[in-house]
Amino acid sequence: MDMQNLEVQFDELKSQVEALNKKAAENKLSMIVFSGDLDKVLAAFIIATGAVAMGMEVVMFFTFWGTPVLRDKQKNVGGKDMMGKMFGAMLPTGTGDVKLSNMNMGGMGTAMMKSLMKKKNVASLEEMIALAEELEVRIYVCEMSMDLMGFKREEMIAYKDLTFCGVAKFLEEANNSRITLFI
Amino acid sequence: MDMQNLEVQFDELKSQVEALNKKAAENKLSMIVFSGDLDKVLAAFIIATGAVAMGMEVVMFFTFWGTPVLRDKQKNVGGKDMMGKMFGAMLPTGTGDVKLSNMNMGGMGTAMMKSLMKKKNVASLEEMIALAEELEVRIYVCEMSMDLMGFKREEMIAYKDLTFCGVAKFLEEANNSRITLFI
Amino acid sequence: MDMQNLEVQFDELKSQVEALNKKAAENKLSMIVFSGDLDKVLAAFIIATGAVAMGMEVVMFFTFWGTPVLRDKQKNVGGKDMMGKMFGAMLPTGTGDVKLSNMNMGGMGTAMMKSLMKKKNVASLEEMIALAEELEVRIYVCEMSMDLMGFKREEMIAYKDLTFCGVAKFLEEANNSRITLFI
Repeated sequence: MDMQNLEVQFDELKSQVEALNKKAAENKLSMIVFSGDLDKVLAAFIIATGAVAMGMEVVMFFTFWGTPVLRDKQKNVGGKDMMGKMFGAMLPTGTGDVKLSNMNMGGMGTAMMKSLMKKKNVASLEEMIALAEELEVRIYVCEMSMDLMGFKREEMIAYKDLTFCGVAKFLEEANNSRITLFI
Repeated sequence: MDMQNLEVQFDELKSQVEALNKKAAENKLSMIVFSGDLDKVLAAFIIATGAVAMGMEVVMFFTFWGTPVLRDKQKNVGGKDMMGKMFGAMLPTGTGDVKLSNMNMGGMGTAMMKSLMKKKNVASLEEMIALAEELEVRIYVCEMSMDLMGFKREEMIAYKDLTFCGVAKFLEEANNSRITLFI
Repeated sequence: MDMQNLEVQFDELKSQVEALNKKAAENKLSMIVFSGDLDKVLAAFIIATGAVAMGMEVVMFFTFWGTPVLRDKQKNVGGKDMMGKMFGAMLPTGTGDVKLSNMNMGGMGTAMMKSLMKKKNVASLEEMIALAEELEVRIYVCEMSMDLMGFKREEMIAYKDLTFCGVAKFLEEANNSRITLFI
């Protein structure tokens, strides 16, 4: 092989490596938080903060039943239509209202689990969200779910890096993530 | 380094790049649709069609409770054994029969959600499946689930790209996908 | 381009390929088994053993409701506090105790499914776990869940490759896996 030949082949290899670099997943974890159960949302935040601690970037997309978990109980907003008022009343208002997916037993199981978590020094959901905020976990909230459930942006929790968006924007993140979970 | 040495090293690098190219994930999303809940199946199709819109290839593997969602209410088939008849009667017969995983409230919540979706111009499950078919989303149906539940191929919906297969064929797809979800 | 120039560029490309090699996902599947439902845990093991059969390495992380599935009914341990005793009594004790997520119908649906699986020659959960052990599927058990539920290591099943660890250790595995699922 002569020098010129080598150069040509080299350039081709270089562009292949460039393409691979573009396709390579980033050190990132993406999660779709579809569930609004206390245990599952808690697991999502434990995974999220654990991943940040390991140097990963984290994006959480809250959709469907996950959306009302991010409402702020203190914030009452008016101007809702009847459907919005009904959903507003029926769905949990924030972290304090969410229940276990299992063994809720009319709230007793959930209360028991919360007291147990305190005793065992496991962070509560509220503390986990605060930690996630500090660790710069990005939160996306599904616009379609907000619209369907009649939620207003003003009634959601204050969280530094919270964006309202559609599924497409989330999929863009997931598409170059090492790990994507549906919770 | 002389020319010959460089060539040897170059060839080695080339084969490494080839190996990387083979291992690199494709621009593809794979989903295991295990759940038969209206909200979760709907979410699966929203994700599927959204991903196609972004240029991704999509494969959905329907298994366990997800399987009866793809039955066609119009198609009655005979020749089932007793177990098959029982499952046939107890499991939902297609999209019209599926319920919310949450707040179903004896069907009222599901009906409310459906009417709300219509009002907000969110596509129904039937419309989403038609859209997925048009967008060439591939559907795999788990053969073991079909067999367990006593379903016959003739009672499933007409869908252009529908294949009956085992978990191994799905895992092959997932293995070179950028995103794989269990829903 | 002269020889020296080519060499410099070649070395740069080489280090890029090295970096890509380090980042490339391994032929590995990771699963978080959060659910303790018979159908979901069964699906997890079907996926796990199917993946091994395809030449993949498999790691399963049992957490929350998934943890009690791995208890051994034969092993009674003492020295638990009141909370530990309560959870011990309320949560399923191993594979024989777990229920379907759907159509359990007071245990009748679960019994029906089990007898159906036997009839159709689908392996039971106990058989699947034995097969997974033989196929060298690695099992991680979440230490936080063990602690929360008051489980002792001595009451878990004998399984060759079982490790008690935190979420960080699992995320390390997931981070270089081709597929990661949350079940």
